[in-house]
Formats: sequence, structure tokens, C-alpha cells
Amino acid sequence: MSSLPPLSPTERTTLGRRKIRAVTDRSALYALLDDALICHLGVVRDGAPLVLPTGYGRDGDTLYLHGSTGASSLRLAGGGIEVCVTVTQLDGIVYARSINNHSMNYRSAVILGQAKPIVDIDAKTHALHVITDHLAPGSWEHARDVNAKEFAAVSVLALDLAEASLKIRATGPGDDQEDIDANEAWAGVLPVRTVFGDPEPCAEVVGIPVPAHVAERGKVGGS
Amino acid sequence: MSSLPPLSPTERTTLGRRKIRAVTDRSALYALLDDALICHLGVVRDGAPLVLPTGYGRDGDTLYLHGSTGASSLRLAGGGIEVCVTVTQLDGIVYARSINNHSMNYRSAVILGQAKPIVDIDAKTHALHVITDHLAPGSWEHARDVNAKEFAAVSVLALDLAEASLKIRATGPGDDQEDIDANEAWAGVLPVRTVFGDPEPCAEVVGIPVPAHVAERGKVGGS
Repeated sequence: MSSLPPLSPTERTTLGRRKIRAVTDRSALYALLDDALICHLGVVRDGAPLVLPTGYGRDGDTLYLHGSTGASSLRLAGGGIEVCVTVTQLDGIVYARSINNHSMNYRSAVILGQAKPIVDIDAKTHALHVITDHLAPGSWEHARDVNAKEFAAVSVLALDLAEASLKIRATGPGDDQEDIDANEAWAGVLPVRTVFGDPEPCAEVVGIPVPAHVAERGKVGGS
Repeated sequence: MSSLPPLSPTERTTLGRRKIRAVTDRSALYALLDDALICHLGVVRDGAPLVLPTGYGRDGDTLYLHGSTGASSLRLAGGGIEVCVTVTQLDGIVYARSINNHSMNYRSAVILGQAKPIVDIDAKTHALHVITDHLAPGSWEHARDVNAKEFAAVSVLALDLAEASLKIRATGPGDDQEDIDANEAWAGVLPVRTVFGDPEPCAEVVGIPVPAHVAERGKVGGS
């Protein structure tokens, strides 16, 4: 179906176990990155790991991360060191006949590489547009533009999706045959979904109805 | 309200910016850890960060992580190195009058320390019970017990919640006064929720109705 080049695992992104869950379809990586809302950015600080939740957006094979120029983790991440960006979507709790075979259905992408700060004005504007379209589609057109002072105070990093691995579990419990035959416990999947609630307008908003890009996002629900 | 000791930030868990979002109420940390379903475990491997989604459970001030003894990341994490466990719950998309003031409402805990492998049989059994109660409450009583072979093949780590920080954003947009006065764009919060869908039984389950611990979890929804 897909004509995209497959993910090409390197030695460090080759999954060490349960290879059946590794997915090399690049379109499945894109789908996860487009479905999920936040990522977890890992860096090494003073020799120890530091993992922080971060907003992002994807355009082709580039992941854009952003934050205040005052955020030390982002400054660190953009300083030419190795980073790890992990995006996880939990899709279900897997109830098995045995405690041991309980599991979770999920999709998780691990992206390794060096994140590069974007300084070119057009490229940075494009990146902010991509990130806004991901977190709040429609807002780029609806809300006030970024002014020069705000533009200078935000830092944007670009991470290439070249070194990425994707792991997906999307099936029922892998129970032992004896437990299936015994038929003594219920087994199945309890789906987990991320959904949007009803929009909550600010009290100071006067005479502006909830715009379609917010209201309809609420109606269709999350991924 | 709470008589719990406050979180005691160390130099590396003291938040560098937007201190208003730092929360030192230990009961708020517990609430997040109990609400969220998965964590992201960060380790340093060959000098580079590696972040993987992991199941967990909490008992008092101990976080338990588990995985197969074959999982290299867990072996690494239990080998006396520094780890970072981050738990994030996204609670809403914050739409502002300006692109720049768009934000997210979220709760995020960052826990630093060394994770210790649990080998004592009673302690490990207790940890597995705690993890099961977190991921699939009721299953410990309903499903088949862990047998000796399975017990040996699972690895459990304990991480003390001593060095933890908590960051919470739970309010409307922080718009500039000029943008509020201009009243030219809608602003507010679109809540994000994690909910459970309808249970999907395995085809081979014969004559066992969906048990209450699964069906009722589905009804009340997630956190």
C-alpha cells in the first residue's frame, strides 16, 4: 500500500526482543506522530537522564519541537548532543487469563538523533505553523500572529526522522493454551482512547462563538 | 488539608522557570501517579539518552516498574545507574487570542534516582500485586496466579519517590491584556480526557460474562 521508504533501523534502534512488534512501515510512524499530542524528550544532563514532556509537530520526515528560549532542557537539546524523542499512544489494557500475560496495546516511536535549532526566519515561521497545526489545528489562521518579540523568545528545534523505530501491540492476550482450555477467567481488551471534552470559553470572550476548528475537534474526539 | 510531607526539590529537580507551575504537595504527586497509566523511563545507554514507555504501580513512596528479564533497558535501569521516570497526563489544549500564548494544561512528574531490582520473593510478589492493581485493578483476584517459571522471568524495579518534582498547568490562557481587550479571537480550554471504551472479549472465552472490575472501569472512564 505505502510507497514510502521503510524505516531503516540502525543497530541501536533494532528492537532487542519481541521482534514481532517492530513495524518498519513509515506511514505507521507518521500516523502515530500525527495521532499523539505530546512527546517525551530525553537528554543527558550531568551524566544523568532527564525526560520532559514537550509539544511537537511533524512535516514530512522532520519533527519540530519548541519551547521558551529560557527552558534549559531545550537549550541543552539544541546544543548538538544526542536526544531521544519518544511518542507513545496507549490503545488498550489487555486482560489475560493469567496475571503474567496481562499486557497493553500501544504504539510507541523512539527517535534518536541530534536536534538542530532553527534560526532562519522563514524556516522558523514554517516550523511554528507546523507545530500549531498539530496542537491546535485552525489556530494559525484564527489567532493573532506571532510578533517579533515573541518570535525571538521562542526556540524551535528540528529532529530528522532518519533514525526511528516503531513498536506496535494491537491484539488480544497471548495466553497459554492450558489457560485458554481451562476457561476459568475472562480475557479481552479494554480500549483506551484520548477524547476531547466540551470547549470551556474564557469568561472575558464577548460575542465570539466557539469556532469550528475547536468545536468540531471536540465532536470528533481524539485519536 | 494534606498531612503528607511536602516534596523536597533538590537542586536538579528545582524547576528553572515558571515556578508558579511547580507543586510541592505530595498528595498531588500521588494523585497523578495513580491517575496516569504509563510512565516514560529514561536511561543513558552508551552516552546517549533512551526513553521507553513502561508500566508501573505505586505503593506509598515507592514506584514499581516491571518488564521481562530479557528487556535490555530494564536490565540497564536496574544496574545501579541514574534513571528518570516521567509521568505525564495531558488535561487540555489551551487556545489563546495569540498563537504565542497557546499552551497545554497538564500534570507532569519527574522522578530521579536509582532503581533497585527486587529479588526477595515476598517483596517481588507484593510489587507485582501493586503493578497489577494499577494497570488492571481486580485482575490479581480474577486471573490465574503467577507461577514459578513466570515469576523468575519477570524483573521488577523499585524507585523511591524521594527526588521528585511535579509541574501542573490547570488554567485558561495567559493572554496579553491588549489581546483580551481587542476581543478578536476565541480563547478557552478544550479538555483532553483518557477514557475506556467497551470491553472486547476474546472469541475463545465461553460463558464468562465481562467481570465487574472490567465492565465498571469502562463505565466510569479514565482519569
